[in-house]
Amino acid sequence: MAVNLSAPIAAELKPVNGIRLATASAGIKKPGRQDVVLIELAAGSHTAAVYTRNAFCAAPVLIARENQTQSATRFLLINSGNANAGTGDAGLAAAKACCQAVAELGQCDASAVLPFSTGVIGQPLPVDKITTALPDAFGKLQADNWFAAAHAIMTTDTIAKARTVELSLNGQKITLTGIAKGSGMIRPDMATMLSYIATDAAISPLILQKMLEVSMEQSFNSITVDGDTSTNDACILIATGQAGNASIEDMDSVEAQQFIEALNLLSRFLAQAIVRDGEGATKFISIDVEQGADEDECKQVAYTIAHSPLVKTALFASDPNWGRILAAVGRSGLPNLDLSKIAIYLDAVCIVDGGQPAADYTEEKGQQVMSQSEITIQVKLGRGEVAKTVWTCDFSYDYVKINAEYRT
Amino acid sequence: MAVNLSAPIAAELKPVNGIRLATASAGIKKPGRQDVVLIELAAGSHTAAVYTRNAFCAAPVLIARENQTQSATRFLLINSGNANAGTGDAGLAAAKACCQAVAELGQCDASAVLPFSTGVIGQPLPVDKITTALPDAFGKLQADNWFAAAHAIMTTDTIAKARTVELSLNGQKITLTGIAKGSGMIRPDMATMLSYIATDAAISPLILQKMLEVSMEQSFNSITVDGDTSTNDACILIATGQAGNASIEDMDSVEAQQFIEALNLLSRFLAQAIVRDGEGATKFISIDVEQGADEDECKQVAYTIAHSPLVKTALFASDPNWGRILAAVGRSGLPNLDLSKIAIYLDAVCIVDGGQPAADYTEEKGQQVMSQSEITIQVKLGRGEVAKTVWTCDFSYDYVKINAEYRT
Repeated sequence: MAVNLSAPIAAELKPVNGIRLATASAGIKKPGRQDVVLIELAAGSHTAAVYTRNAFCAAPVLIARENQTQSATRFLLINSGNANAGTGDAGLAAAKACCQAVAELGQCDASAVLPFSTGVIGQPLPVDKITTALPDAFGKLQADNWFAAAHAIMTTDTIAKARTVELSLNGQKITLTGIAKGSGMIRPDMATMLSYIATDAAISPLILQKMLEVSMEQSFNSITVDGDTSTNDACILIATGQAGNASIEDMDSVEAQQFIEALNLLSRFLAQAIVRDGEGATKFISIDVEQGADEDECKQVAYTIAHSPLVKTALFASDPNWGRILAAVGRSGLPNLDLSKIAIYLDAVCIVDGGQPAADYTEEKGQQVMSQSEITIQVKLGRGEVAKTVWTCDFSYDYVKINAEYRT
Repeated sequence: MAVNLSAPIAAELKPVNGIRLATASAGIKKPGRQDVVLIELAAGSHTAAVYTRNAFCAAPVLIARENQTQSATRFLLINSGNANAGTGDAGLAAAKACCQAVAELGQCDASAVLPFSTGVIGQPLPVDKITTALPDAFGKLQADNWFAAAHAIMTTDTIAKARTVELSLNGQKITLTGIAKGSGMIRPDMATMLSYIATDAAISPLILQKMLEVSMEQSFNSITVDGDTSTNDACILIATGQAGNASIEDMDSVEAQQFIEALNLLSRFLAQAIVRDGEGATKFISIDVEQGADEDECKQVAYTIAHSPLVKTALFASDPNWGRILAAVGRSGLPNLDLSKIAIYLDAVCIVDGGQPAADYTEEKGQQVMSQSEITIQVKLGRGEVAKTVWTCDFSYDYVKINAEYRT
């Protein structure tokens, strides 16, 4: 059960001019399931991307990264049910074969196709099943297929993640629609599992890439479910340029800032949706680390708390066992950590102040916060002015169940 | 259920000349439970120690560290059921009051007493209960109480950890007896939860400390259950000097090397016992990382695998989902990791060779290894000559159960 996350409503997902999508069934893992997504980009679109930093990145990531440097992207091909990771040279050949098949049907160069895969690692990708499903996908390309696409990319997700954000740039209506998938193996490092965001705004390629990176930092790069960075993470931002606005060419312009604000809203929603639907999650946790000397040390403390199995199981149990939070801060490895300056809060309830147990803390107050489905853990370091927020979920029986039983 | 770990047998735990022990019941957490241990060291004993590096170290750790520099240690006082951590100035006063009470009954200076606490974090230490139990403990001091002491220091441990190792130094019989406790919040950093090892050998204080540090590195500092470093870790090595051997004054001497070998045997047994009894553990896992450029990078890869919830749940499920091991190696953060040089084995079964899936790997072979209760994951990095082994356990429903229900 996802935490306070509603399923998207098809009618609320707005088409983006210049983008058509289709889903098809290749029967990769389960017969009959829609497990292939084809996204067509109108000529003239620009594409920005960030990919996993996992050194063992999957074959499709290698091919997508390469193809993006060769040609203007015209198609994205995504399959769920098989990650085509840990598959060696055969995996590279499989990803290339899929791109070639799309290129033939779409009448473009193979390097204009970016492939993406998600699912189990280490199994050969069934290329024939995917290419067999392609004609059906081409025949069904439509602008209003975001809802179906959001469902077709799911693996252990229990709920689809999709949203539209609209803004006005100098009176010109701009649409951003995005989808994402992910539930486990989530600790994105420059990217998430898979996310695709498109806009009809006109934005120069360089600015588009910068915007994506800025936005990732405060969304997909600020979440963790289990600390495991996937081999297949990718986030793609497409600008079709069909809205009629003057192309955004400067990051410091008012238009760029307005667009980034809308992009942040969308990417943060999708990133948080992944945490809310984290494997076995029963609670959504914000970890605010404040008064750090720099962002790195804020992240280090936040992720140490977010990855602690003891903190996560205490959150699951609604147990105000705050000693575990204290221990995690203490082992986070910050040099010269001055305990006498540290304060820790559960929502508004102070548990530690000046390194001492807060005088007015009571078990009842702690219990009340811990029983909520959304909890903020706030740590003040007393070392500077920088703050960073990371989002995570708790750690339940169901996390073990899902990950012990997945694949078998 | 601990993994292939038998309970110690009282008669096999040999007394150490110069050491007497007693347990008593202070009713700290449960009425009637033996939860206090008093250890008396004969005059002339030397004591070496390593303590947690958690910045939020507990009050007794601060006091023990300080007292050790003031006086020759004559008593160790250990309580279970309350960690006296996160307790601020009141916690320091409580630990000092306990030392003072021991000093009065034992007719020594309070700084000759080292206090240790283990249990729940953040609760006031019930000093009166402990001091009330002390006269009973003093009256029961005996040389053959190691078995009772090993039980009295337990918290979530399901089985006591204790062993005796004997050796001969120039024809002189030497005895080492040690006990340890620990099951969760285990990722020791220069120390473990709590371990006490005593020998009757004569060893100079400086050499004793060096020996302890060398031995820790390949025992307590090479294990992890959940990556959480406790606030209360401590390991104490006592040499009473009553065996009659010529005092060991040189680390490079034959006698020092023989002693270290015996100490390693004992400390590695106790450290592995903690993993075998890891919270919810059903499997004992050795992670051998070989061909590293230095020990740090070997540890980095080994601990990334050992802390991955996805690897640990796959081990629990006996699922040869080796892609999760691959993904963990890939995200371990080693600079310039060359995939084409990497090989990964489950016991003798090669799963990845030269960065490619092993040609002769079959699901059946992987399944066979993963079904065992003891598994070695071997990673060859192809970067150098250094190797490092880390021990851990799997991640089961019971880990969540124990940590969600402990304390409440």
